[in-house]
Amino acid sequence: MTPPSLLVRELIDAIGEEAVVWRPEDLLVYEYDATIDRGQPEAIVLPANTDDVVALMRICNRHDAPITPRGAGTGLSGGALAIRGGVVFGMNRMRRILEIDVENQTARVQPGVVNLDLGTAAAPHGLAYAPDPSSQRACTIGGNVAENAGGPHTLAWGTTTNHVLELVLVTPDGEVQRIGHATRDQPGYDLVGCVVGSEGTVGIVTEALVRLVPAPTSVRTLLAIYDSVREASNAVSAVVASGVVPAALEMIDKTTIAAVEPVLHTGFPLDAEAVLLVEVDGPPSQVAAEGGIVESILRRFEPREIRSATDPEERERLWAGRKGAIGALGQIMPNYYLLDGVVPRTKLPDVLDSVYEIADRYGLPVANMFHAGDGNLHPCLLFDEREPGATERVLEAGGEIMRVCVDAGGAITGEHGVGYEKRDYLPWIFSDDDMAAMQGLRSAFGATENFNPCKIFPAGHGCGEAGGGHAQQTIAKFGPKAFV
Amino acid sequence: MTPPSLLVRELIDAIGEEAVVWRPEDLLVYEYDATIDRGQPEAIVLPANTDDVVALMRICNRHDAPITPRGAGTGLSGGALAIRGGVVFGMNRMRRILEIDVENQTARVQPGVVNLDLGTAAAPHGLAYAPDPSSQRACTIGGNVAENAGGPHTLAWGTTTNHVLELVLVTPDGEVQRIGHATRDQPGYDLVGCVVGSEGTVGIVTEALVRLVPAPTSVRTLLAIYDSVREASNAVSAVVASGVVPAALEMIDKTTIAAVEPVLHTGFPLDAEAVLLVEVDGPPSQVAAEGGIVESILRRFEPREIRSATDPEERERLWAGRKGAIGALGQIMPNYYLLDGVVPRTKLPDVLDSVYEIADRYGLPVANMFHAGDGNLHPCLLFDEREPGATERVLEAGGEIMRVCVDAGGAITGEHGVGYEKRDYLPWIFSDDDMAAMQGLRSAFGATENFNPCKIFPAGHGCGEAGGGHAQQTIAKFGPKAFV
Repeated sequence: MTPPSLLVRELIDAIGEEAVVWRPEDLLVYEYDATIDRGQPEAIVLPANTDDVVALMRICNRHDAPITPRGAGTGLSGGALAIRGGVVFGMNRMRRILEIDVENQTARVQPGVVNLDLGTAAAPHGLAYAPDPSSQRACTIGGNVAENAGGPHTLAWGTTTNHVLELVLVTPDGEVQRIGHATRDQPGYDLVGCVVGSEGTVGIVTEALVRLVPAPTSVRTLLAIYDSVREASNAVSAVVASGVVPAALEMIDKTTIAAVEPVLHTGFPLDAEAVLLVEVDGPPSQVAAEGGIVESILRRFEPREIRSATDPEERERLWAGRKGAIGALGQIMPNYYLLDGVVPRTKLPDVLDSVYEIADRYGLPVANMFHAGDGNLHPCLLFDEREPGATERVLEAGGEIMRVCVDAGGAITGEHGVGYEKRDYLPWIFSDDDMAAMQGLRSAFGATENFNPCKIFPAGHGCGEAGGGHAQQTIAKFGPKAFV
Repeated sequence: MTPPSLLVRELIDAIGEEAVVWRPEDLLVYEYDATIDRGQPEAIVLPANTDDVVALMRICNRHDAPITPRGAGTGLSGGALAIRGGVVFGMNRMRRILEIDVENQTARVQPGVVNLDLGTAAAPHGLAYAPDPSSQRACTIGGNVAENAGGPHTLAWGTTTNHVLELVLVTPDGEVQRIGHATRDQPGYDLVGCVVGSEGTVGIVTEALVRLVPAPTSVRTLLAIYDSVREASNAVSAVVASGVVPAALEMIDKTTIAAVEPVLHTGFPLDAEAVLLVEVDGPPSQVAAEGGIVESILRRFEPREIRSATDPEERERLWAGRKGAIGALGQIMPNYYLLDGVVPRTKLPDVLDSVYEIADRYGLPVANMFHAGDGNLHPCLLFDEREPGATERVLEAGGEIMRVCVDAGGAITGEHGVGYEKRDYLPWIFSDDDMAAMQGLRSAFGATENFNPCKIFPAGHGCGEAGGGHAQQTIAKFGPKAFV
């Protein structure tokens, strides 16, 4: 058995043996997040408080060890991977809800608090935490802050950045900063806005004061089945234009319908092209009014059928097809690669046509599910990783789909982040000057090359090739500087 | 007559004589903004496009001339003042609306576009620009971006930062950056979020892509008269807790009622303590539902009277007391000093008690009007500047009121910015480390001491004493580092 390194011994001295993971067999579970790439750290530390984070960071810096912050590891862009080794800071032990201020509708939490647990704690007070990523049963507020997480409710309530008031941040040089302010607007620069969505590259958040919102007292869910994706998209635009802001506005396509129907018995016709889910919530009379408006708009675009639900059980049934979609896809192929693109809402039908064409060309089944109201699409490429060359083919097809989004005036990520996976595509949407400005911001927080290396930006030595070099292949096709 | 300096001659060579103001008598109008302090520039330049801004900035940098960007000069914190002289960049000539994209609900504008003009241009398409500061007939989008402007509709729609998607920024060293992205979420750091609200200290915005929102198809305004500010405040909290998000939630106090009633004949009883204005908007059936909920909540807190309006003319009458308040105050005293504090919403009644006590102690009449839903209060101290020592007394009382807001867990500005006026108070809410982090951000954009000097941060030589040294007096009382 290999003895622990000097670095590991110092880490153990600082926070105790039970809070440091370093044996090779124990490290395995930290090699992954929810995407395709991998990275092997030398050790995982599990700090219990801000002081621990400071002490550990200083030890790592003295040893020139790369640092990678990690929440629940549910990220979809390789953001939590220790690409150059070093020490992973697992924030899961810091999972206390420190305070819920009912009157001012805020909660003070540690970064390891699970998203859904915060919602559960707020519920008895008639409050809710609005950002609701699909992974909300596992993902943490710290990870949500890093990725500026969204979810179905983003349409009405905005992403995480609209819900964070104040942060305690340990900067890469081990200094503690309290940024932002409990009041909604704050004097000075919006440092909180800089940190939210920075994908853990400017420091480690050890505490967050977040907004809570009134929990809806009633909800109505509408499901409409369409014979054409274009008509369904037009309905989405009409709903958005009406002035009603639905709590959710989701779409699934024919492939997804085909996958979910045999498993979940949703009763969706297999020859339908699109299913639209629209949810409105609030006080009962407001829900009645808004639901009526939405229903009449959905009818204008000639749906094959409209279903509606207000009680929790029926609502669950309408959502089943959307929420169970990813799981059901396992019936078709053992692996999937979930993409994340965002385009102007009006470009959805055209972009979708291209997505089908690309998947077809690569011989890959593709299922589409998306936050239609935000123009945020999630094509899901299906494959079997045991088949030689399949992973490479999938990643290459993914690159082409990203490219289509960029060409439509969109971007390479709507909510999953750039991370390790998509950093080589960043020059497609930002010029060298733009990226230099971002690097300047990173430096302003004292970030060094060792702090969460190989994330967001394409430069950086020792970072290897994201996704087995798929980016290089795609870039060979389209050029490294497609930015216009 | 003094001949133009070498600097002025170079500026004229760059953009023509008609676009450079430099004769002392012409400079006078640029010495002011809408607050108390003054600053005299050496010249004003009126660039016509981004290239002009770059060329002018490089000339100023070569001459080590301070640069101060300016919109319409309606700012309420001295942000547009050329405290150390130098060159003011007046952005008013760049006032073209470049594009309105109806389907994707965006507008591309130059910075000198007047806020209300954008709304007027969007209206025929059924769209609106949400941030609506009181000065919206004069203030510009560029100024709104600099100050992260809010307004009555902030409660429902958020401040300017929630409505800016993309910016063209000329950095202090004369480089052009295109930051942000047309899609709502964007990869990489939120540079747009850094620039919005930076009070013109990190560069000059020469183009903005902003979100438009659906214009409401119907509106209902409710006005409730209360015998106690505390009951009115409780009604505000109850409305916010209900889940209905009103388009506006405004309050005026007894002094304001006394000022407006004789002039505007609003029919407000002179012995009432507070008038609450609540507006809901959207499609008609939604407005009916939400209006009903709001009305029943307002009634729970025993108002003396409730008035309601849905047609534009009646609505105008209900708003008259709020909108005409500042003007009516001229009946009481010739000058006013409009403060801007923000506190947790539940602290409003206590803070208000303190505001009255302080004003009383200084022998100054005070009128209060506020965005109650946001906890953003605007005490208005009334005085006559011809009376010796009056201005100093007002500024000192203002400092004490700021202090009360900070002690209540609030901050020194809700929407007017720190600017020149309140920079000495910044250490009350931020530690040295916090301010160093902000300065680091400023440097990341390449800002030097000559770029918009003497704004936001207390340091800086040659900046004089804001407000005739009132900050120094207040700080002598409370200490320079009240931050806890």
